Amino acid sequence: MTPVPIALGPHADPMLMEAIASGGGEWAPMVDAQALVWAADPDRFPDELPESVRWVQLYSAGVEDWFAAGIIARHPRVVFTSAAGAFSATVAEHAFALLLAGVRALPEQLAATSWRQQEFFGKVGTLRGSTVAILGAGGIGRALIPMLSSVGAKVLAVTRSGLAVPGAAETLPADRTDEVWDRTDHVVVAAPATARTRHLVGAEQLGRLGAHSWVINVARGSLVDTDALVKALRDKAIGGAGLDVTDPEPLPDGHPLWSLPNAIITPHCSNPPSVRPPAFADHVATNVRRFVAGEELLARIDPVAGY
Amino acid sequence: MTPVPIALGPHADPMLMEAIASGGGEWAPMVDAQALVWAADPDRFPDELPESVRWVQLYSAGVEDWFAAGIIARHPRVVFTSAAGAFSATVAEHAFALLLAGVRALPEQLAATSWRQQEFFGKVGTLRGSTVAILGAGGIGRALIPMLSSVGAKVLAVTRSGLAVPGAAETLPADRTDEVWDRTDHVVVAAPATARTRHLVGAEQLGRLGAHSWVINVARGSLVDTDALVKALRDKAIGGAGLDVTDPEPLPDGHPLWSLPNAIITPHCSNPPSVRPPAFADHVATNVRRFVAGEELLARIDPVAGY
Repeated sequence: MTPVPIALGPHADPMLMEAIASGGGEWAPMVDAQALVWAADPDRFPDELPESVRWVQLYSAGVEDWFAAGIIARHPRVVFTSAAGAFSATVAEHAFALLLAGVRALPEQLAATSWRQQEFFGKVGTLRGSTVAILGAGGIGRALIPMLSSVGAKVLAVTRSGLAVPGAAETLPADRTDEVWDRTDHVVVAAPATARTRHLVGAEQLGRLGAHSWVINVARGSLVDTDALVKALRDKAIGGAGLDVTDPEPLPDGHPLWSLPNAIITPHCSNPPSVRPPAFADHVATNVRRFVAGEELLARIDPVAGY
Repeated sequence: MTPVPIALGPHADPMLMEAIASGGGEWAPMVDAQALVWAADPDRFPDELPESVRWVQLYSAGVEDWFAAGIIARHPRVVFTSAAGAFSATVAEHAFALLLAGVRALPEQLAATSWRQQEFFGKVGTLRGSTVAILGAGGIGRALIPMLSSVGAKVLAVTRSGLAVPGAAETLPADRTDEVWDRTDHVVVAAPATARTRHLVGAEQLGRLGAHSWVINVARGSLVDTDALVKALRDKAIGGAGLDVTDPEPLPDGHPLWSLPNAIITPHCSNPPSVRPPAFADHVATNVRRFVAGEELLARIDPVAGY
């Protein structure tokens, strides 16, 4: 099959050229291109696109600026796609790093200044054979499943509908979340913040987890009851907590979470600007493959709805 | 297909019963069994085995005690298998935890006591799109590959022969190890300790890695030149080091590695006794599947060679 010609702007970034090629496309000058991958903001976007260009991939997840600049409206025959969802795997990787660090007792080992092997023989755990509940199996939760599977953990997914999530050993609907706490080793919170999910993880839920259990939150701080969590961590009722989001956020200086030895706090940096390029490249490769195959593109922008 | 009857001793452990079933076997009393999974030491091993038993799976990787007790010799028509290799994935999980913790800047974030988001935006990295060299792709190295693939990292494997390792983007023979250092982001040392691998990672090699690169060692301390590593860590010439093994070992109190903020030391506890049962269960499931299918069993003991 002849590779589909795809332009790249404003620069011919090598990582994106490779992504285009891996999706079955080929970098081409704009005049010959059927699509354009634009890895910058709207300011320098070309005023005119050749008639041959039928699809434009944008770099950001939010596209308010592109609507405001009138660019979407100016090209009614072109399909625009955003980067929405492209960074799910990056956030999932962070959640996975927090969980693995906790289960492998890295916080305590980092604090050690002598060779306490016998002690850590009893503290280092494994995810192999364990059950990990993912509360909210949207983009981030789904991206986490293959990572957990790769180390032999079993996933108990909770979604609004309860429809089976691929790769999960079992999926429960949100109204059966109550069944999770006695049945799981660890919990990853990845659900949206709503009135119904506020304090989804509270004193009662924490009390039903095990002394080895880790709670990871990469969603929003409000889903976990901070006071109840601090108490559970102080009492060693659970193994620990890995939090990329907190309530309140930012976590104020002097807050007890800063000094608890079984808490890992990262300041809402699971998807920092510096790590976005490779994730965007994966998104581009997937969309190029879909474009070449004539399939539906990911994160297609609705020109009427405005997102 | 009728499940193959397999006995379990000395206890009917539920995790092992599940492993037997998942491999296509079925727990059965010894008198009816074609195989026996023995999850204990030789002391209580039955004096007689029914004629129907053709295979015995032992619990340990080293089997000197079994030879010493004369049990292997007493059952010449029975195939014995050990647990050798069963714990590769456990050690690989530890290596992966160390690497992810390093790349995600968890040591520095664990030490922080205030919300330094802007700073950590620049320090949190990702394995997605990165290259990880695995020096010595034996059992541990091979077990690590699916974990790295699950987060979108590319593997550059180095083996003695250089024969392509499944799942690796590229495999180099050991005599081309010199090409690795300029081409990889991170390095995982998983090769055996020999005269040729002593100080495989020394000053020159560390100097060719990047300022973001992490070096992980789960093999033997002698493969890394400790003095050169301490210097590279002090100079921030590399991102950091995650060491489950050290030289000298145990690492003495007051050694500089204990206090360097970019070193993670775990005291040779990547495969502690407490985490072995699920790994052994996986090994049993695989060998039951092979037994049922009439395939060659993993870790078959050679009664003449004595291991």
